[in-house]
Amino acid sequence: MSVTHPRGFVAAGVESGLKGKGGKDVALVVNQGPSQAAAAVFTSNRAKANPVIWSQQVIADGIVNAVVLNSGGANCYTGARGFQVTHATAEHAASLLGSSATDVLVCSTGLIGDQLDLQKVSFGVTAAHAFLREDGGLDAATAIMTTDTHPKQAVAQGEGWSIGGMAKGAGMLAPGLATMLVVITTDAALDSGQLDAALRHATRVTFDRLDSDGAMSTNDTVALLASAASGISPTIEEFTSALTALCEDLATQLQQDAEGAAHDITIEVVNSASEDEAVEVGRAVARNNLFKAAVFGNDPNWGRVLAAVGTTQAAFDPYDIDVSMNGVRVAHKGEPDQPRESVDLTGRAMHLLIDLHAGSSTATVWTNDLTHDYVHENSAYSS
Amino acid sequence: MSVTHPRGFVAAGVESGLKGKGGKDVALVVNQGPSQAAAAVFTSNRAKANPVIWSQQVIADGIVNAVVLNSGGANCYTGARGFQVTHATAEHAASLLGSSATDVLVCSTGLIGDQLDLQKVSFGVTAAHAFLREDGGLDAATAIMTTDTHPKQAVAQGEGWSIGGMAKGAGMLAPGLATMLVVITTDAALDSGQLDAALRHATRVTFDRLDSDGAMSTNDTVALLASAASGISPTIEEFTSALTALCEDLATQLQQDAEGAAHDITIEVVNSASEDEAVEVGRAVARNNLFKAAVFGNDPNWGRVLAAVGTTQAAFDPYDIDVSMNGVRVAHKGEPDQPRESVDLTGRAMHLLIDLHAGSSTATVWTNDLTHDYVHENSAYSS
Repeated sequence: MSVTHPRGFVAAGVESGLKGKGGKDVALVVNQGPSQAAAAVFTSNRAKANPVIWSQQVIADGIVNAVVLNSGGANCYTGARGFQVTHATAEHAASLLGSSATDVLVCSTGLIGDQLDLQKVSFGVTAAHAFLREDGGLDAATAIMTTDTHPKQAVAQGEGWSIGGMAKGAGMLAPGLATMLVVITTDAALDSGQLDAALRHATRVTFDRLDSDGAMSTNDTVALLASAASGISPTIEEFTSALTALCEDLATQLQQDAEGAAHDITIEVVNSASEDEAVEVGRAVARNNLFKAAVFGNDPNWGRVLAAVGTTQAAFDPYDIDVSMNGVRVAHKGEPDQPRESVDLTGRAMHLLIDLHAGSSTATVWTNDLTHDYVHENSAYSS
Repeated sequence: MSVTHPRGFVAAGVESGLKGKGGKDVALVVNQGPSQAAAAVFTSNRAKANPVIWSQQVIADGIVNAVVLNSGGANCYTGARGFQVTHATAEHAASLLGSSATDVLVCSTGLIGDQLDLQKVSFGVTAAHAFLREDGGLDAATAIMTTDTHPKQAVAQGEGWSIGGMAKGAGMLAPGLATMLVVITTDAALDSGQLDAALRHATRVTFDRLDSDGAMSTNDTVALLASAASGISPTIEEFTSALTALCEDLATQLQQDAEGAAHDITIEVVNSASEDEAVEVGRAVARNNLFKAAVFGNDPNWGRVLAAVGTTQAAFDPYDIDVSMNGVRVAHKGEPDQPRESVDLTGRAMHLLIDLHAGSSTATVWTNDLTHDYVHENSAYSS
């Protein structure tokens, strides 16, 4: 269902031979209208892949007819030749769809620094176009997987309108988004300005706060396409709320399928002086390898949490800070509280609460533990 | 030899029972003069351990008679009671030495959040005082080890004067120093202002650029004590040069014994707009888990290097940047150059050269790879 759940969208996913190990690798999502309003956000990494450089130009006018996505190659640091592959991909899709290349977003994921085979990509786009279907969402979601173990899809239902989304993630999950490709569709009738505002709000508090391994990708894209096929215009509040819920759903699915992870860690920072400071503290803890390795070992090592908090510029008094793990307050006013032994970290879900006692703001950051499987998967990726 | 190599110093290392697994755990280094000038730098973590809070007051007047160091407990986040343990430790050492507690530095390392047993520490100080010897350097260097596999010592020889040092490190090695305790002695005749200037220069380009795992400790201390027993006053340039070489020697020893590491990575950033930007780039790469895991797998994945560089604010053009690994240029002007297969990463030493083509500054940052053993050691530390 996912991206083809809202009316006005067709999709497909096919195998073109881009992946050494085989499997679907090219996806196509088409907005059949009547509207083709769109918005998108991209990686904040200054090393941007060719498809990101291309798609940033496409989104400028707020009109998108289709999205081509491929796994099996990031098309990043591949120079002018790589940019030409992206451009030719958009031209090819546009010619099949009778639209303009400048209305075709392109997204790629895979190894950085290898040229993408244009012949294979073109073959994939031709095949995907032939297979476009109103229930093609699952095939599309499958074709964008890399080390993901399963496709990620989500649907949010409004009053007579809906939102659908698909995502791929797995590794390199970090702020400013990360090897994360997300396509979201809706049949609500909204203009590109409204879509942009809603998307920026939703990603700021969901994908931007998923920091699995602190590594920021070169290819991240979250695109939102609106067909207006429902003929209904929800209020911006209604739509943003539903979109945020859908993004959180997809973000959680990415976290739960992060490369090699054994724990899904929710870091909730409360009573901070500002939301930004709460995020800064959450992110510092989320990126602390010693804390992450301790969680892998089911070790409630709260000292490593406080050592990470101490590296931030956030307002807090080292002697008025509380830390709880899975509901057990292990540190109170910067001193040991309940014994470590009373914390059970054997489950996959782990909740870390940091009370800064410095204000009334709050933020939640999601991460994963640091495991043997993470090291294994990422030490053998390109070989 | 190490800290007892320069004239005017005695040291000892003894077992007091602080470590669950046994072994020496309390060290004492005493400056017998005639001068007791000193300087020290500490962690920039805002969560500072009690011995750091204490020692920052001790160093204020530039006079240090002795340093007490213990492994087996960090005495951090242990509240007023923990501070009292540090204070009492200094008082006890001072009473034995006939000096003032305010001239005794205290350094601790081990688990955060556990109270340190004052009775055991006091016993250790008493014993160490009884064993003070002119060749006690090795015992002292041994007593400060935690997960270090061997003691770290170094000596630098001047014209009639010398410098000696000992260090412990292993994990939590990161900028602003990290669970790293270093005591350096010299028989050169220099005042505390000269020592401070020399020490700040030396640590800035050595220990501060060792970033093994991005985790900043709460306890780091580097202390420099000068006895003037040689009667010789080298120029500040001579002394700083020798001190920097000694610090680099110790930093390299820490890197080579970092927890679980299989590769020692030297990241050399050249042709940057400023030294600060070169350090920023080097550190971003040093902290990128995907790059570090790739090195563990002997995989010359330069795309991960450029993705990490892209997260910085340093001046560079993504299409005018070169990357070399062990002398092989794998990326040139942001595109693939020599084939990955021509890079051999099977040795322990790995050299990464990043040419930003943005200026004429340079900096070197040292780090380690991310390995199964790192995850193992740090997932089982407190259990």
